[in-house]
Amino acid sequence: MGLADGVLAGSQRALARLATHVENDDDVGRAGLLKLFPHTGRAHVVGVTGPPGAGKSTLISALIGTLLERRFTVGVVAIDPTSPFSGGATLGDRIRMLERQSFPGVFIRSMASRGRTGGLAPATAGMIHLLDAGGYDVILVETVGVGQEQVDIGCLVDTLVLIQVPGSGDAVQLLKAGVLEFADVIVVNKADLVGAEDLARGLRSMVTASPRDRGDWSPPVLRCSATKGEGIPQLADAVIDHFAFLKTDDRLQRRRRAAAKSEIVDRVNAVIARRFSSADARDDLTDRLVDDVAQRRMTSFAAARILLDRWRSSEPNTGESS
Amino acid sequence: MGLADGVLAGSQRALARLATHVENDDDVGRAGLLKLFPHTGRAHVVGVTGPPGAGKSTLISALIGTLLERRFTVGVVAIDPTSPFSGGATLGDRIRMLERQSFPGVFIRSMASRGRTGGLAPATAGMIHLLDAGGYDVILVETVGVGQEQVDIGCLVDTLVLIQVPGSGDAVQLLKAGVLEFADVIVVNKADLVGAEDLARGLRSMVTASPRDRGDWSPPVLRCSATKGEGIPQLADAVIDHFAFLKTDDRLQRRRRAAAKSEIVDRVNAVIARRFSSADARDDLTDRLVDDVAQRRMTSFAAARILLDRWRSSEPNTGESS
Repeated sequence: MGLADGVLAGSQRALARLATHVENDDDVGRAGLLKLFPHTGRAHVVGVTGPPGAGKSTLISALIGTLLERRFTVGVVAIDPTSPFSGGATLGDRIRMLERQSFPGVFIRSMASRGRTGGLAPATAGMIHLLDAGGYDVILVETVGVGQEQVDIGCLVDTLVLIQVPGSGDAVQLLKAGVLEFADVIVVNKADLVGAEDLARGLRSMVTASPRDRGDWSPPVLRCSATKGEGIPQLADAVIDHFAFLKTDDRLQRRRRAAAKSEIVDRVNAVIARRFSSADARDDLTDRLVDDVAQRRMTSFAAARILLDRWRSSEPNTGESS
Repeated sequence: MGLADGVLAGSQRALARLATHVENDDDVGRAGLLKLFPHTGRAHVVGVTGPPGAGKSTLISALIGTLLERRFTVGVVAIDPTSPFSGGATLGDRIRMLERQSFPGVFIRSMASRGRTGGLAPATAGMIHLLDAGGYDVILVETVGVGQEQVDIGCLVDTLVLIQVPGSGDAVQLLKAGVLEFADVIVVNKADLVGAEDLARGLRSMVTASPRDRGDWSPPVLRCSATKGEGIPQLADAVIDHFAFLKTDDRLQRRRRAAAKSEIVDRVNAVIARRFSSADARDDLTDRLVDDVAQRRMTSFAAARILLDRWRSSEPNTGESS
């Protein structure tokens, strides 16, 4: 039995093995996804995002417990910020989350580091599809970051949960970052800290004042204390409610279409980046162009153009294989 | 006299007008940069980055004052986090910075919003080159964000200043984000807050323990209070010292070569993204592919491949014009 069949049969072992190939974006991973892709689209994909130190992992751990109690199976894709040099950051939070791994009905995958060359986005989309095909009801995607990164992950998920904590920058900063428009559920975590009520009030008024692209849904602002387990059932309710909301009219369909578009663009960029960094491309011409730009003899426009022309004339069509 | 000539002659008016074209990445902007590019490479490019609420703009404002006192001219590129929907975030911090605009020897440019389609990176590189050609001694590039975004801006600058504040996540979180390896100067801002000394101590031990890609430079950890003006002269010293360090051996050359490479990759991606979103490409085929992926009839790999093939066969070489 191949890995893809194993995944469809519910084997966590097959899932874990195929996940490695998907993360590496290699031929086995691509062939597996090709086979599994028609079996995807059933899961509720939930992004969980917020600044460093907001307690995302602890909150996700608590949310997993609540979802399990309600008979949902849960897949988790945890995306570490990448470092091209250290080859992946420390895993303190991951370890706390992995304590949940022993529960049946839970599969957690922490994605290792990828530099700008590989592209995190296509691998993330692939991992979501993989867990979806594996039959998990809810897929939680944990990302770190503010600003553009959150906007990006917002494109790939059905429901985006934004976590904030008192003292991590006020609501105006959030509005500046343009994140608030994408949040479907907002959590003030560490709600027993000084300033939590002010933050929640600020967020509520921002949400009310903010332009929305998500129809008639008004994102609730919830206060949680993940370490004490407070507010977690309400968070689970809000996430589930939002999915039910999406299923009315064609909202879910529209959102999935936007996700597909975003995934294609990411994939195109990844193909290009791969060509640029592949052994084949790192030849004399590429080196010379880099030198020319560094020495101000040529602009980056012209260099990009020459490279694109060269790829255009030399690259055979290898179908799924590039 | 053309805009580019005006910029070379020191006209802030010409600079402001050409900056708009560079930001829009239009033909006039490209022609201007093509002409100015040979005149670049003299300025010291300094990235200033940190999480929302870290007081970056106030600190930059204070740093401008100190650099002016030392007879440096200063250009500033302020990059707002983008929102595809609001069309650019609020500008509270910008306004504080603009108070400095009336000083001679300072030019500040706040870059408006660009969605993922346009690509912020190529426009940022272009703006840096523009201010460089305009004769500014130091160019400060302000970015918001943690994680990958900071790694990206780290590729474009000579010196990266990382700002942290007590309570915005501990040093371990920073290490996780992989940012610390890229920082050349580390600032603990709001140094009168509780926890500042602990944060500085944590950062110092992280810096000592952390792998470095930047040779023998050991990044200083400075305590500042931007609102009180404390620690700003020391920050200016550290930034200037780092540039002097880069000029020994071939360090600056190597860094500029890496920047050139990064800029070419960004430019290639921008060309691709533009094709994807251009009126020409938003045709039936693209729509159909998005539907196919959304409906799980085709993977994003296959869709990306078909689009790349189509562009390959249809796109004429227009040299600098795309």
